[in-house]
Amino acid sequence: MATLLDIARAAGVSKMTVSNALRGKSNVSEATRARIIQTAQRLNYQTNLAARALSSGRNGILEFIIQDLDSPFYSKLAKEVSRAAEANGMQMLIRQSLYSAESEKSALSSTNSLFCDGLILATPQLSGAEARTLAQSRPLILIDDCSPDPQLATVNTPNYEGAYQAIAHLLSVGVRRPLLLGGTFIDDIDAIAADSDSASAARPLRTVCELRVAGAAQALRDHGFELEPAQCLPVDWTYELTRTVIREMAERAHGDFLFDGIFGMSDVAALGAIRGLEDAGLQVPDDVKIIGFDGVTYGDIATPSLSTIDIDMTAMANMIVSRLMEQLNRTDTADSGADYDSAPRNGDHSGDGGNIGGTVGVGGSGNNGVHGGNVHNNAASATRTAAANSTDSAPTVDVAPFTLRARESTLGRATRIH
Amino acid sequence: MATLLDIARAAGVSKMTVSNALRGKSNVSEATRARIIQTAQRLNYQTNLAARALSSGRNGILEFIIQDLDSPFYSKLAKEVSRAAEANGMQMLIRQSLYSAESEKSALSSTNSLFCDGLILATPQLSGAEARTLAQSRPLILIDDCSPDPQLATVNTPNYEGAYQAIAHLLSVGVRRPLLLGGTFIDDIDAIAADSDSASAARPLRTVCELRVAGAAQALRDHGFELEPAQCLPVDWTYELTRTVIREMAERAHGDFLFDGIFGMSDVAALGAIRGLEDAGLQVPDDVKIIGFDGVTYGDIATPSLSTIDIDMTAMANMIVSRLMEQLNRTDTADSGADYDSAPRNGDHSGDGGNIGGTVGVGGSGNNGVHGGNVHNNAASATRTAAANSTDSAPTVDVAPFTLRARESTLGRATRIH
Repeated sequence: MATLLDIARAAGVSKMTVSNALRGKSNVSEATRARIIQTAQRLNYQTNLAARALSSGRNGILEFIIQDLDSPFYSKLAKEVSRAAEANGMQMLIRQSLYSAESEKSALSSTNSLFCDGLILATPQLSGAEARTLAQSRPLILIDDCSPDPQLATVNTPNYEGAYQAIAHLLSVGVRRPLLLGGTFIDDIDAIAADSDSASAARPLRTVCELRVAGAAQALRDHGFELEPAQCLPVDWTYELTRTVIREMAERAHGDFLFDGIFGMSDVAALGAIRGLEDAGLQVPDDVKIIGFDGVTYGDIATPSLSTIDIDMTAMANMIVSRLMEQLNRTDTADSGADYDSAPRNGDHSGDGGNIGGTVGVGGSGNNGVHGGNVHNNAASATRTAAANSTDSAPTVDVAPFTLRARESTLGRATRIH
Repeated sequence: MATLLDIARAAGVSKMTVSNALRGKSNVSEATRARIIQTAQRLNYQTNLAARALSSGRNGILEFIIQDLDSPFYSKLAKEVSRAAEANGMQMLIRQSLYSAESEKSALSSTNSLFCDGLILATPQLSGAEARTLAQSRPLILIDDCSPDPQLATVNTPNYEGAYQAIAHLLSVGVRRPLLLGGTFIDDIDAIAADSDSASAARPLRTVCELRVAGAAQALRDHGFELEPAQCLPVDWTYELTRTVIREMAERAHGDFLFDGIFGMSDVAALGAIRGLEDAGLQVPDDVKIIGFDGVTYGDIATPSLSTIDIDMTAMANMIVSRLMEQLNRTDTADSGADYDSAPRNGDHSGDGGNIGGTVGVGGSGNNGVHGGNVHNNAASATRTAAANSTDSAPTVDVAPFTLRARESTLGRATRIH
């Protein structure tokens, strides 16, 4: 089969020029590049790439399984993860599951997934345990797997910390009775509302929503309020559904809406809530102040502009890809028989994951860096299990940093700072 | 190397069960699936996949190069193309170029692109000719390449036809002086405005914007108006920039805005325009009526809900993938020495591409199915060139169907029907 040298000889250029041309470097003229590619194809160099994968077991492709390419959260995350992968010399095979557990199982066990060097799995319908079984022995990162005993490296959105800041900020602008809107968190609202720490001890928090409710409950408690179950409204966080539910709730209240603030536990839910309030004749932020969670592009374009917990997607993507590259490199090192770094990484948030509490932007109150407890306890109690082939390093749980983006259009002016 | 039968024997199941498990079928229990995957990995079946690619030259992966995963147009298109690819048993390697010609060159000439079975290239910074050179001999579909002499199979958005309908509808609700907003179309506005047919003869229309302006100009002419150059405002169609430009234009007019309607040549431009008008104290739709182009999800969530030329992305994605699969199948057939279908496909729009003029929804006026002329002339005059390895079939130009989505919130009530 053709080598770079064969192509170089046939095309009348140096081997370095062939390499540069095939890697798309800019220091090769278009005419030369075209000639080299034609020569490579004539000599069947493509087939040679398969041979290289055969010998190295690598092809430079990472697979990223997301729910929906046209969801504002996933499209922003996919953009940043794709950028981070390319910066590490890898390419992304992005596959969407369209919210189907069956599709995720298929993706994880399909032959082409076996062909990829590593996998990233975003908020799956499957549990971490199921994903682990299906993807066993392959480098894998889970996103927002909040199971208390993760056996795989995980990168989470700032569920607890962001919710804490969102509620603290609503209180700081005068809200006294916020509604928590979105997702499903029915089981343990009483327990979570009563005391998230003891709830955590009794039944570990497992879902994104439970962590967000726990963070909100703690913020209320720290400011002298208690979260009542009636303040939690679980509703699938789609725009249309949220809009309808809030409109109906506001209309039933006959102009006397029971809540003076809403924490939409996703931006899409918050945007739907704004529209639902408007449908019912209420004004944002005068009647009800609103903050979302995610920091998606929609929120900037919306009227009014949305206040939100703005996840630093760039940092989150860098965490995801760097953790996956660590696993790949450990696998390589282990395969070659050399030593590898097996030091436990529990609680190591000094790098990308360091900014746990996030930063607070315009009008934000304090309370940075607090209450990362649940997530980190999870990491600390994790069973030490192989995260990649033949290695024995502990899984990591990283939490993405965030900024509180406060806008007068949805929060009004600060009336009281705690 | 391990075969399916080897895995079946080692795992104590049938070969069919192994096949079902690896393809993710649901008729295999999780326990069995897990055992089979572990066995496959123990026997190094992954490497065997590389061997299969080596022998067949195929790995079932298509590459889709788009500008930006977090743009509402591309994220919706990527979702649908991904779905269509999966329906054809293929997987998408989605790569974003972030609006960089250099990145597109790199993507087209990189080794992993050579590794893919086929390529889809969306509205590139590169010309069709450059893309052709870089991707030579590989199955490739261009999206929105409007060059008048395409040598590659192309799927276009309904640039001319959609713009025609957008303007016709603005006129039908009483607009007399619409502004055409977005993109770059500086060179030939006079010629295009004067007569798009003769302009087309003098210098063929080459860009998405030129086609949209030509369609708009023809609609005006057909209704007894002429497009003046002052009605064309080229501005990079980003939300923030469009918002600023329209606000400043409206403020300079001191409440006497020179236009009673705006055709935003992308939804993002239209949404920016709405906000810019609001910033300047003007009301949509009372002072200015607005329609966009694309049909992205943002437009539904926005306040007010956006009227738009709603591209049928599902149909467009089906066109794209089916055209690519045709090329792949021709390549296969050619490789195996059998006959293949080399009938010219120019003007064959009876299948997916058949609905050229689109359909008109609520409040739409007539004029369906007209003025596809430029695009089809392009197809008809195309040089017949190899579209895939060793085949001799003419390239195709398909145009995605669309619906005019008219909403009172941005268009008001119809005051006059033409």
